[in-house]
Amino acid sequence: MAIKIGILGYGNLGRGAEAAVAQNDDMELVGIFTRRDPSGVQAATAGVPVRSADDLLAGDPLDIDVLVICGGSATDLPEMTPKYAALYNVIDSFDTHAHIPQHFATVDKEAGENGHVALISSGWDPGLFSLNRLFGNCFIPQGKDYTFWGPGVSQGHSDATRRIEGVADARQYTLPVEKALDEVRSGSNPDLTTREKHTREVFVVAEPGADHAAITKEIVEMPNYFDEYDTTVHFISQEEMDRDHSGLPHGGFVLRSGKMASGATSVIEYSLKLDSNPDFTSSVMLAYARAVARLSAEGQKGCRTVFDVAPAYLSAHEGAYLRSHFL
Amino acid sequence: MAIKIGILGYGNLGRGAEAAVAQNDDMELVGIFTRRDPSGVQAATAGVPVRSADDLLAGDPLDIDVLVICGGSATDLPEMTPKYAALYNVIDSFDTHAHIPQHFATVDKEAGENGHVALISSGWDPGLFSLNRLFGNCFIPQGKDYTFWGPGVSQGHSDATRRIEGVADARQYTLPVEKALDEVRSGSNPDLTTREKHTREVFVVAEPGADHAAITKEIVEMPNYFDEYDTTVHFISQEEMDRDHSGLPHGGFVLRSGKMASGATSVIEYSLKLDSNPDFTSSVMLAYARAVARLSAEGQKGCRTVFDVAPAYLSAHEGAYLRSHFL
Repeated sequence: MAIKIGILGYGNLGRGAEAAVAQNDDMELVGIFTRRDPSGVQAATAGVPVRSADDLLAGDPLDIDVLVICGGSATDLPEMTPKYAALYNVIDSFDTHAHIPQHFATVDKEAGENGHVALISSGWDPGLFSLNRLFGNCFIPQGKDYTFWGPGVSQGHSDATRRIEGVADARQYTLPVEKALDEVRSGSNPDLTTREKHTREVFVVAEPGADHAAITKEIVEMPNYFDEYDTTVHFISQEEMDRDHSGLPHGGFVLRSGKMASGATSVIEYSLKLDSNPDFTSSVMLAYARAVARLSAEGQKGCRTVFDVAPAYLSAHEGAYLRSHFL
Repeated sequence: MAIKIGILGYGNLGRGAEAAVAQNDDMELVGIFTRRDPSGVQAATAGVPVRSADDLLAGDPLDIDVLVICGGSATDLPEMTPKYAALYNVIDSFDTHAHIPQHFATVDKEAGENGHVALISSGWDPGLFSLNRLFGNCFIPQGKDYTFWGPGVSQGHSDATRRIEGVADARQYTLPVEKALDEVRSGSNPDLTTREKHTREVFVVAEPGADHAAITKEIVEMPNYFDEYDTTVHFISQEEMDRDHSGLPHGGFVLRSGKMASGATSVIEYSLKLDSNPDFTSSVMLAYARAVARLSAEGQKGCRTVFDVAPAYLSAHEGAYLRSHFL
């Protein structure tokens, strides 16, 4: 029996999740739910209905095994995930690290009281990077952690740049500093400042007559976003922006290095190189949605994270197959 | 209450496990058990008794939460792990990939019938590399897997070389081919032959008057071990061997690359760089020993692998701490 997937939210992540269902033979997409007027939204997949998000809440719950919630972490998910966890098994990619404990608590209450399983903060960071931070700390108990992001597009930094007067369009890339990465890989456990770990590169389309020097100054001095980094600003045309910077690539590195009790050094490195951040994130979410369906079928309830899911639950294959093919 | 650890087998791996206990505050080493005459064996840790392996089997089981079995996969573990799983929770690092299903079945029977938890094939390959092969297949459903080993010492190849006439000592290094690694990292999903993925480098101490050319020929043409690889042989003195090649470094790379449904490429890379293969392996085993103790305390029984263990079970910290620090 296929796992019945519903997708709530139809932006980049929702479209990625929709496409990813086709790569998972044991899943079936039963509907896309949007807060917009559904009559104006067309699903990319033939035969998949686009419905109002209100339909999820009206009357009896719909026949959905796992609802994949594709909303923003700032305002959408803190409200949506607990609300829908009261009615469905759900998964989200809540990524405001500092607020995870609070989000976990509210979701756990709704899911637990209503007999559903909710998995929050899936994706790659939080998600796969978190797993590797945890693993690193368990396998190298005395060591240091390093997380580098990029090369990739930061949507938050791109948005912040677009709000500057005279900026028509902007795209910000976060870049790990190779020298710092190599130092960490050497096992020397360096202390690295924010500036030493990442640089930022911004491509800007300026409005006609805008003051490029003033825009550059405002970007590189922007508190929290850019002031602690070495930032390079490039002015390009809208045509160049559309041609060269329309993708959402991302990735990064999690390293753990330290010394075994004997004094021998060990270094663990995990890295991702993604042409499309939302496509990979949604693919990870679907694997964890499979786990959610299974945990729920076992009678579990409440909130979970990637830390609580045995890896075998992520695969459509049974244990004997996993042991003979992957172990 | 500390987790009471027993170590069975006191070679490189057992000594690594002994040292690693000191890096895990929630563990206590209650004894080292050897098949040798214990009166001739001295524990590196003050106050830890060295006892005969027979003591584990005589009379009532000893007060041990998890027995860490540090034996060889060829002949030791197939016999030892099921035998001790009947009496204790156990963990091993059985690494003969082709025989894992059989080993799992025999261990599962003994552990299951006697109410213990056994975890087999922990370490890094099988173990952490297996996890990353499984994860890769779940997160990038349509892609290819690549495992590279090294740079590192292969004890099997070193032993095979030592059996050649005229060879007094030998050490074999397995080296991943950088060009092949870079091709895989590019996301091009190349088809790679055995020869294209790894090279082998052998350091030999020849006996006086031995025929170096004949030894070289016998090494590079040795079926299964060397004939499918490009192998370089160096003749060195015993002093150089002792000075430069006494360690057991190892490591490797697991990559998964493929295309999301949109056509976007994703590449996942996991790598280890280990000064000491047995020290890291035993550190991983201790983290999984912690999980074994917890699964057993929950009332579980039977055989498990790394695929069956939720990551949170590996850490001494509780869920709330993990979520606020690592997620």
